[in-house]
Amino acid sequence: MLMAVGLAQAASPEAGRAAYAAVDPFIGTGGEGHTFPGAVRPFGMVQLSPDTRIQPRKDAYGWAAGYRHDDSSIVGFSHTHFSGTGHSDLGDVLVLPISGDVQLERGDPDVPGSGYTARFSHDSEVAEPGYYAVTLDNYDIRAELTASERVGVHRYQFPAGKPAHVLVDLRTSMYDYPGKVLWSRLRLQPDGTVTGYRKTRGWAPGRELYFAMRFSRPVTGHAFHDTEQDVPYKGFPPPGHQDPRQRAQGEGRQLVGSFDFDGAAGDSLVVKVAISPVSEAGAIANLDAEVPGFDFDAVREGAREAWTQALSAVEIQAPEDDRKAAYTALYHALMGPSLFMDVDGRYRGPDGAVHRAEGFRNHSTFSLWDTYRALHPLLTLVQPAARTDDFVNSLLASRRQSPYGMLPVWSFHGQETWCMIGYHAVPVIADAYMKGIRGYDADEALEAMVATASYGPYDGIAQYMELGYVPIDEEGEAASKTLEYAYDDWTIARMAEAMGRDDIAARFTRRAGNWRHAFDPATGFMRARKRDGSFREPFDPTASGYGTDYTEGNAWQYSWYVPQDVAGLIQAHGGDDQLVARLDQVFDAQVDPSIFEHMEDITGLIGWYAHGNEPSHHVAYLYAYAGQPWRTQERLARIMSTQYKPTPDGLAGNDDLGQMSAWYLFTALGFYPVAPGSNEYVIGRPFLPEATLNLPNGKRFRIVAEGLSAAHPYVGRVTLDGDPLDRAYLRHEEIMAGGELRFVMQANPNKDWATAPDQRPYSMSR
Amino acid sequence: MLMAVGLAQAASPEAGRAAYAAVDPFIGTGGEGHTFPGAVRPFGMVQLSPDTRIQPRKDAYGWAAGYRHDDSSIVGFSHTHFSGTGHSDLGDVLVLPISGDVQLERGDPDVPGSGYTARFSHDSEVAEPGYYAVTLDNYDIRAELTASERVGVHRYQFPAGKPAHVLVDLRTSMYDYPGKVLWSRLRLQPDGTVTGYRKTRGWAPGRELYFAMRFSRPVTGHAFHDTEQDVPYKGFPPPGHQDPRQRAQGEGRQLVGSFDFDGAAGDSLVVKVAISPVSEAGAIANLDAEVPGFDFDAVREGAREAWTQALSAVEIQAPEDDRKAAYTALYHALMGPSLFMDVDGRYRGPDGAVHRAEGFRNHSTFSLWDTYRALHPLLTLVQPAARTDDFVNSLLASRRQSPYGMLPVWSFHGQETWCMIGYHAVPVIADAYMKGIRGYDADEALEAMVATASYGPYDGIAQYMELGYVPIDEEGEAASKTLEYAYDDWTIARMAEAMGRDDIAARFTRRAGNWRHAFDPATGFMRARKRDGSFREPFDPTASGYGTDYTEGNAWQYSWYVPQDVAGLIQAHGGDDQLVARLDQVFDAQVDPSIFEHMEDITGLIGWYAHGNEPSHHVAYLYAYAGQPWRTQERLARIMSTQYKPTPDGLAGNDDLGQMSAWYLFTALGFYPVAPGSNEYVIGRPFLPEATLNLPNGKRFRIVAEGLSAAHPYVGRVTLDGDPLDRAYLRHEEIMAGGELRFVMQANPNKDWATAPDQRPYSMSR
Repeated sequence: MLMAVGLAQAASPEAGRAAYAAVDPFIGTGGEGHTFPGAVRPFGMVQLSPDTRIQPRKDAYGWAAGYRHDDSSIVGFSHTHFSGTGHSDLGDVLVLPISGDVQLERGDPDVPGSGYTARFSHDSEVAEPGYYAVTLDNYDIRAELTASERVGVHRYQFPAGKPAHVLVDLRTSMYDYPGKVLWSRLRLQPDGTVTGYRKTRGWAPGRELYFAMRFSRPVTGHAFHDTEQDVPYKGFPPPGHQDPRQRAQGEGRQLVGSFDFDGAAGDSLVVKVAISPVSEAGAIANLDAEVPGFDFDAVREGAREAWTQALSAVEIQAPEDDRKAAYTALYHALMGPSLFMDVDGRYRGPDGAVHRAEGFRNHSTFSLWDTYRALHPLLTLVQPAARTDDFVNSLLASRRQSPYGMLPVWSFHGQETWCMIGYHAVPVIADAYMKGIRGYDADEALEAMVATASYGPYDGIAQYMELGYVPIDEEGEAASKTLEYAYDDWTIARMAEAMGRDDIAARFTRRAGNWRHAFDPATGFMRARKRDGSFREPFDPTASGYGTDYTEGNAWQYSWYVPQDVAGLIQAHGGDDQLVARLDQVFDAQVDPSIFEHMEDITGLIGWYAHGNEPSHHVAYLYAYAGQPWRTQERLARIMSTQYKPTPDGLAGNDDLGQMSAWYLFTALGFYPVAPGSNEYVIGRPFLPEATLNLPNGKRFRIVAEGLSAAHPYVGRVTLDGDPLDRAYLRHEEIMAGGELRFVMQANPNKDWATAPDQRPYSMSR
Repeated sequence: MLMAVGLAQAASPEAGRAAYAAVDPFIGTGGEGHTFPGAVRPFGMVQLSPDTRIQPRKDAYGWAAGYRHDDSSIVGFSHTHFSGTGHSDLGDVLVLPISGDVQLERGDPDVPGSGYTARFSHDSEVAEPGYYAVTLDNYDIRAELTASERVGVHRYQFPAGKPAHVLVDLRTSMYDYPGKVLWSRLRLQPDGTVTGYRKTRGWAPGRELYFAMRFSRPVTGHAFHDTEQDVPYKGFPPPGHQDPRQRAQGEGRQLVGSFDFDGAAGDSLVVKVAISPVSEAGAIANLDAEVPGFDFDAVREGAREAWTQALSAVEIQAPEDDRKAAYTALYHALMGPSLFMDVDGRYRGPDGAVHRAEGFRNHSTFSLWDTYRALHPLLTLVQPAARTDDFVNSLLASRRQSPYGMLPVWSFHGQETWCMIGYHAVPVIADAYMKGIRGYDADEALEAMVATASYGPYDGIAQYMELGYVPIDEEGEAASKTLEYAYDDWTIARMAEAMGRDDIAARFTRRAGNWRHAFDPATGFMRARKRDGSFREPFDPTASGYGTDYTEGNAWQYSWYVPQDVAGLIQAHGGDDQLVARLDQVFDAQVDPSIFEHMEDITGLIGWYAHGNEPSHHVAYLYAYAGQPWRTQERLARIMSTQYKPTPDGLAGNDDLGQMSAWYLFTALGFYPVAPGSNEYVIGRPFLPEATLNLPNGKRFRIVAEGLSAAHPYVGRVTLDGDPLDRAYLRHEEIMAGGELRFVMQANPNKDWATAPDQRPYSMSR
């Protein structure tokens, strides 16, 4: 019966609108979240958002998304942003409306009037998915932003009686440093279209981004400036063009342009800006295709529709704060990987060359070390399979174009940054394949996964293949690498097995057991060995950071990373109770947070548990593997209540392109994908009275938490489609079939539910 | 009868081979010529030639073509060079074969062994059109170079018993300075193809050039280095690739790569390198299309055939030194404008964007201030009309893509440098049109010419249109600009008149008279006026250089620049004798050359006459306009005997993409195009006993100098097709009709020949 209901019902328009209204884009824009409040479509190529400060590299961490909620200044609205990164870049094509006199330098944000930087207060701000508005107080300008996939659209209301200008500054960037802009161009075409590009040396070295912009009113004057000093070759300005107002084109490394507008007082100006990875002509084509006119409201309405549709994948009945937090988490989970191609399918690959996507939509911004864990698995439930197929095809295309024949590690705008560790494109593909999402060449995919996992020069893989572990005397952070490689390897084995490639499956199943080489029975920690087989001494399980055995973590945080074989981990520790005792040590430790002062990313501490960074994300769920699911439930309650708030400072760590948010949403629903590739979700406990997944196959999966309250934090019993469910995990196919998962919550732990060995989630060793 | 012979005969293969053998590419590689000895096809995109020193900007003038004959070191062989410029750039993709150990820095050329720079002596050098060979003494390597249009081909013979390497240095440039390389890439593809590019900030700011190279033997090892210090972002090398031999790709600003080769002792290695303005894929396509295999000899033979064909446009019977000088002049006149597009027709325009040439072959390297004078007119006689049509179509395409809507001023690799003055694309187009070369949209061409001549912000054109002259208090070098604009304007009037566009013709005929505003009757010099109409004081007719009234010249050099109206100039001076007296003052002055020490380009002095720079090039022919052609004959004899030698230091000034050489060839034949657009050539006197033009229309035009000798330097009489020719000019159509121009030379001047007013060449005022 429930199945029948699922088939018959689509998401209701009302539910989508309510979901849309519940989102608060300011969540995460303060504190550690590093999200931005600006306008973006789901997975959109343009992220148009205010930048409150342009920070030099040394101070840039907190401004990775350009905006910090504490600030009261706006430098301008730029068109590309990461959502939730630690490291950063982007901030392309900064645009600011100005009334009165034009200033060319942004000045000191703490000294109003020292430059063009505007002042604002939160009172005037409005942020909704796909829409942002603010009043620039010192200019008396109301600015509104919206976006299509490739076009940012601005609407400015200038004050009467003052000259109106729009500034375009190509000098600014997230993570700014002198010389970052390698080259740039600004051109005013005879028809009033402004085009240009810049090539920057940032996190992605040598990145190129092109743009085209048009104004709804005639440009009555303009000026192009090059503020670089001591230019060796004077190619710009041309002879006779000493007056910046005569320059039709500027090329150089420090370009800023201003455009003047006349008009009746109170007329609004619409500015539309398309970006392109390929060329100025590509940007113009994107502009024409997506926003042919200057109807700001229509673009805003299109953004609203797109978000309403995307957010209606989950219907939530819950108190307002919980709905706000959950829908904002879903919103943040639909930011990336971002579309990265022109309307004609062309884009730039990791070779810097232009390619055309054939049969798929190319995406980039793969923060894979973060997002393979929960974000990509979430997207298989809340987005059409075609989206994940696009991701896989994008990863495979990138690998074909890779100078090293590797799948992306951490790439954006088509370019490899080599950030973080592992080869986590592998579990993304394996997870998709195992879930039956197969709109790509699976043979090529498996070959790419094997080749990537066998590429010796990268991060100790050669030694890992030789020794079964990464030796710390030859490669840094070796314990983390050994552990993550072993998990990734297991996902290759899973996919190879499913494809009938038994040789590959056997080989990578063996490699999946390499985590054992990192386990030190004497200390109970995962540690790094040297080539001679001995563990590196001295050993400090509290030490983290560069030079240690671990990546963004310490032994207390990394020693539980065997998602593919928690049963094996339990055995290694001597049994369920021993692992549980160790996990309790993790959560209950008294830790002085200053121990991580040197590690920006390690935040959100509960004992040693650091919810603000990804290596901890699966840890609370491990109790369930040890037969004590009520302990998982307790830990989750603590995490949910302390690490998330529906406020600007409500994220305990970087959102990391949606991984933090995906964790929240899964956990709120009641289950979590500890081991993507297993097709299992470990059951935790629900935090929402009722939620329904409108699945991409048209079916509905409802989760009900009967009796849920602060006084009833424990799972008493569970039914799936009315039948008792006595295991601590759900199968992906059970969700995809539609139906109802019903929890009955109670005041005390049910120590009998899902505790038997055969009721525990997947592990290799079983 | 002679006509019939002309129709019946094509160029004989023997004549072509003899012409080929007569060329000496070393002429001009010493002294002031700035030519290069390397391998190039006629108008080829690749100019593959040895660079003897990479000079910093301050010392770069003499090394504008990379090679100086005085040097004994070779840094490497780079693939792009200008032929004969003063300012410079290029020197892309420097390749050097090495035996023994690899060094990464070029070292001090004066300290052998201090770097990779090789040693050579002229004894081992061979240079023929399309072929160059040298022995690198310290490496004991024989290196040979040849080229197709877009591919440079190297053949190296390594010594036995030593490791063999090829170095590729992307750091070097003509006119070197720190930071010139904005970005570059080196990539070793799995099939052994090496690709890359660089973006440089040189004379053309932001220029991009891509390349692809392949080796005839397997690359057994390689290493990619980035020698830049203090790189803010470490995108290169990738993690784990500390060993430069593991790097498949390098990106950065200071890249150098080395490639290793095994093989039987004495095996030769062929290296082929294609360039592309568009992309690495474009370079690969060029490579595949033009040089599919590794047959060095076949490419060399193709180059020989191309040159033999091109050089057979003129058949010369003369003493060996004269033949050598004349054929080398023709060779140097066939260097540029250079082809600039991939085999698929794509190229980059002045907007930095990629365009495709439809229906023409795109050319660039337009040194127009030089070449509009004699080079382009020469090419209408010795090249198919399609070549000139390609030039015109390339100029028009560039103008369509120009941010300023202007025809090129001085452009190369598609980009505008704004070098020199005037809008001399205009006379190139007008000369073609007036000669009936019309394979382009003439309406668009005229519109482009008018638009360019009316573009106010450029170099005082607005004031010129307002006042009839460029005011020196608002724009520098105003006298030169007024004079050159007036001439260019006259060519617009000529073409407009021929097209029946009487309004335009009338307007630009008026503008053509603007030279009168520069004439100062009080001093007899052309001078610059201020906005108030007065001439600028103080006035020093010997002063030249920045800040003066003139461009690369002084009053003594620039005051005769009215090619469109020499009769008017004569009237202004008060009559024939007055002008002749002034011209004599020019040639007969006692001038201390040190007065021009600050002006590198003003060389080749005879009195004030400076044959090494273009403003003087028509001056000796002016006597003929004044009814004293024998004085022209005398001056030409002096210039020919003192300013040209068939030796490396044989050019008195920069060859300027063939203008110096075109002057030589015209003058040697006996006539010169003082006023392109007039369809007239002023008759001087021949310096070759016999020469035949094999015209592009299949006809032959023979020039015979009966009795020519040092003792018979004067023209006694002239016949055209047997009929007496009593005027001091030839019409273009008379040449194109084929036939015979016969001079009878004599010991004394014939003061009766061609002296009457109606026997003088074209002037507006008549």
